Parts: sequence; structure tokens; C-alpha cells
Amino acid sequence: MQTRRRQIEDVASALFSSRGYAATSMRDIARALDLQGGSLYSHIPSKEAVLAAIVEEAAEDFHAAVRPVAERPGPAAERLREMIAAHVRVVTGGRERAKVFLFEWTFLGEDRRDAVARSRSAYQGYFERVVAEGVAAGELSAPDPKLSAVFILSAMNAIAYWYRPDGALGPDALAGHYAELFLRGLQAHER
Amino acid sequence: MQTRRRQIEDVASALFSSRGYAATSMRDIARALDLQGGSLYSHIPSKEAVLAAIVEEAAEDFHAAVRPVAERPGPAAERLREMIAAHVRVVTGGRERAKVFLFEWTFLGEDRRDAVARSRSAYQGYFERVVAEGVAAGELSAPDPKLSAVFILSAMNAIAYWYRPDGALGPDALAGHYAELFLRGLQAHER
Repeated sequence: MQTRRRQIEDVASALFSSRGYAATSMRDIARALDLQGGSLYSHIPSKEAVLAAIVEEAAEDFHAAVRPVAERPGPAAERLREMIAAHVRVVTGGRERAKVFLFEWTFLGEDRRDAVARSRSAYQGYFERVVAEGVAAGELSAPDPKLSAVFILSAMNAIAYWYRPDGALGPDALAGHYAELFLRGLQAHER
Repeated sequence: MQTRRRQIEDVASALFSSRGYAATSMRDIARALDLQGGSLYSHIPSKEAVLAAIVEEAAEDFHAAVRPVAERPGPAAERLREMIAAHVRVVTGGRERAKVFLFEWTFLGEDRRDAVARSRSAYQGYFERVVAEGVAAGELSAPDPKLSAVFILSAMNAIAYWYRPDGALGPDALAGHYAELFLRGLQAHER
């Protein structure tokens, strides 16, 4: 039963992320699973419920990976580096799921959408707060910590679109580059 | 005639960007324009042709805004600042059109998709090349200019999703923050 639900969510993630939630029907999902439509409904009550399950599990993965690092003491730059690595690992570890979470969640019904919006905002808050803590400690310079958080999250989320597991850069090397770009920018540094 | 086509593209941009290309029908477009389906076909041969028109015009706008700056001589950091400002202005100047260009272009048929992929790659090349020129001149530090270009373009493109014209930051102030984040990172600077 658990396995069947996971299968349904994987197939739905693939369809939602490639053609979009609105253009995918329960019949499409059933067909991709070689199930009769009626049999699919015995596992999952509606297309929105599949979307909700995918989005909520992905949200949990992101929070579980990043929150402990954000809330721990220590230098802000070091924590941001680890948060970036953690976020990139979640994105690259399940790109279809991440794309659905990041870009299709707005198709949820109002109540669920509000809950996801709150969860996303809390998640962005981890980055924003650690940047602000770094500024308060004189360690970082950021006139607008919220915009800094939006900036790095935007750059990382797009990875879901272009990342290829067989490409030249693994998740940790990629995260290292992005952390460097975020924390030190492009200015030439003495060595 | 020109005006009618522009109207069709505006309405299609709104529909494609909110519910997705695949979930929008010619009938939806006709309905939003208060046209009969048949009358819509007298202006535009297919849904894909509308998508192609939107994507191609947006691509021209991006190239026209950024290419002259990229190809001009001068310090790389200064050019990157202007290229970022130009890109952000195109995104914020027509967010629905930008979203369609950035995220729905993959629904084009193969020939057009290949052409757009080449155009996007050339566009990314402006940023990549200016970063590489800055590195060659000893002005910037970037171990991977291509990844730097992907990084800043990803951050800027997400603006199409969250930007509100009535928000606190205008396009130029926003671009200034993003240029600063890209060029100088978050490290604390002496003043």
C-alpha cells in the first residue's frame, strides 16, 4: 500500500513536472501506472490529493535538511554554506518532485495553498535570519537580508530545471560554487 | 490587425503563464477575447504559433537590451551591472510574457524549440563571456564563468514570479541589489 502510493506519487511527479499539473488528468496517471481509473481512486481520492502529498513531502524534506543547520549557533557563513549544500542535495535528489513542489504548488486548493505558502515563507526565513545574524555579528554585509534569501533560493531552485545527474558537477561541488558566488561574489580576491 | 495580434498575444501570455501552455486551448484564448473560435484562426494559425510569437518577441527584447552592453568595451563589472539592469527591466516590464518565454518555451515543436534553445544559449553566452573577460583582465574572480552566468540568470528570471509593480522595490533598485549580490557577494567590506 505504501509502495503503491509512492509509485503513484513518482509517476504523478514526472507528469506534473513535464507537462504541468493542469494538463495532467487522473486518467493520464492511471494509464502511466497501467491501472484502471477506478483502481487509482482506491489509492488516492483526487488529483489534488496527489499534488498535496508530493508538495507536503517535499516541503518536509527541505525543512528537515535546512532547519537544524539554520538554528544551530556558529558563524553565519559556515551555516549558509551547509544550508546551500543541503538545499541543493534535496533539489538534485528528486528533481521532478522538487519541480512540482517549487512550481506547481500554486494549483493546490485554497486551504492547502495557504498552508504551503506559510511553509515556504518559514523556509525562506531560515536563510533570511542567518544572513541577518551574520550582518548583526559584523560578519556579512547585506542591506536587505530578505532579498538575499530570495536571490540564493531562486538560483538554487532553477537547478531542478537544468541539473543532469550524469553532468560534470555533482551536487556538493555545485553547492560549493553557489555558496562561493553567494558569499564572496565575483570580486577579485588576493590569495 | 497588428493590434489584434498583440491583443491575442497578451491574452495568451496571461493564460499560458497562469495555467500553463498545455492546459490552455485555442477555445480558452478565443473566449477570453470574446471571439468565435473560427475568427481566432483567421488571425493566428495555431496555439503553437501564438506561443512561438510570444517567445520570439520576448527573446528579441532580451537580446536587444543586453547584447549591445555585453559587446561594448569597458570594465566587466560595469557592463555586468548594466546587463543585469537591462535583463531585470525586460522581466519586470512584461512578467507574463517573460514567464512564457522562460518556462513554457519547451512546449514548442521541435524545430522552433531548437531555435529557441540556440537563442537562449547565445544569450547566456553574453553573461558568460563578460564574466570570463573580467577574469582575464584580473578584475573578477570566477572559477566557472558559465556557472556564474547560470547563477545570476536563474536569480533574475525568478523575479517574473514574485515581482509586484506596486511593491517596495522598483526594477532599477532591485537590479542594483542583485548586481551587488552577484559582484560582491555577502562578505563584509570595510567602508
